[in-house]
Amino acid sequence: MPNDNRVNADPLDLVISRLVRAPRASLWRAWSDPALLRQWWCPKPWTTEVRAFDQRPGGAFHTFMRGPDGGTSDNPGCFLEVVAQQRIVFTSLLGAGWRPATPWLAFSAVVTMADEGDGTRYIATVMHPDKATRDRHEEMGFFDGWNTCITQLEAFARQSL
Amino acid sequence: MPNDNRVNADPLDLVISRLVRAPRASLWRAWSDPALLRQWWCPKPWTTEVRAFDQRPGGAFHTFMRGPDGGTSDNPGCFLEVVAQQRIVFTSLLGAGWRPATPWLAFSAVVTMADEGDGTRYIATVMHPDKATRDRHEEMGFFDGWNTCITQLEAFARQSL
Repeated sequence: MPNDNRVNADPLDLVISRLVRAPRASLWRAWSDPALLRQWWCPKPWTTEVRAFDQRPGGAFHTFMRGPDGGTSDNPGCFLEVVAQQRIVFTSLLGAGWRPATPWLAFSAVVTMADEGDGTRYIATVMHPDKATRDRHEEMGFFDGWNTCITQLEAFARQSL
Repeated sequence: MPNDNRVNADPLDLVISRLVRAPRASLWRAWSDPALLRQWWCPKPWTTEVRAFDQRPGGAFHTFMRGPDGGTSDNPGCFLEVVAQQRIVFTSLLGAGWRPATPWLAFSAVVTMADEGDGTRYIATVMHPDKATRDRHEEMGFFDGWNTCITQLEAFARQSL
């Protein structure tokens, strides 16, 4: 079972802190190549198509997911900060070149990675504009979904990178 | 009269391109110190209070304007890009530390400065999420308002910097 460590957070945030048993360099590699990212990005058996991946501030980050039942989830956005092997920030509120968007779910996500023992402390902080959006995101299955993806990331990084 | 040069733009954008008779270094200085910025930021006799000014990517940029009739305009946001003497990008959709906001007017603004003759080509490109927001911004008096501020900026930079 994943170590689902729900830390104290701002009331508008959803936060997951995990000790991942993989080196930071491998996790970063899985995060910085769209051909690798698509292999762990969404809970299987859903699949990810990476429609845009310009990993720099203001660069497009657009994933499109498909489920086995024909369901889809379209998630355009952009990167806000990219610090190699340390920190990635992205948002659904802006697209390529900082253009404002009208997302179906408004959030900015901060992912940090730091060495801890033999592994990596991996923290995802997802910020929302208001409590209703935060709660809706949680009710959609945020913790199950993101924890599953982190577990997939861990397994992928250990086996393939 | 200001040289109101309405250039061709994306249908979701409002763009002003002006040849400003002041050196780029002075314009930048007027843009990078809140005590200076407040002197030209909004059309007089309205006044500006700079409530936050952390001029770096993800840093808060919050102005609060007051009119002689008691009217106010509250405009929180954050900087997205800051390239000294060249380029400033800010948005109303995110606040300090990239936190999502719920702005009364959704936009991102790109301001660029480049040497041109004895002056500076000053271009403001304001992007919106949809045509309705763009049109509402224009109907609120975007061109008059922003052109007035650029004229104030030009006069301030020539006289005081």
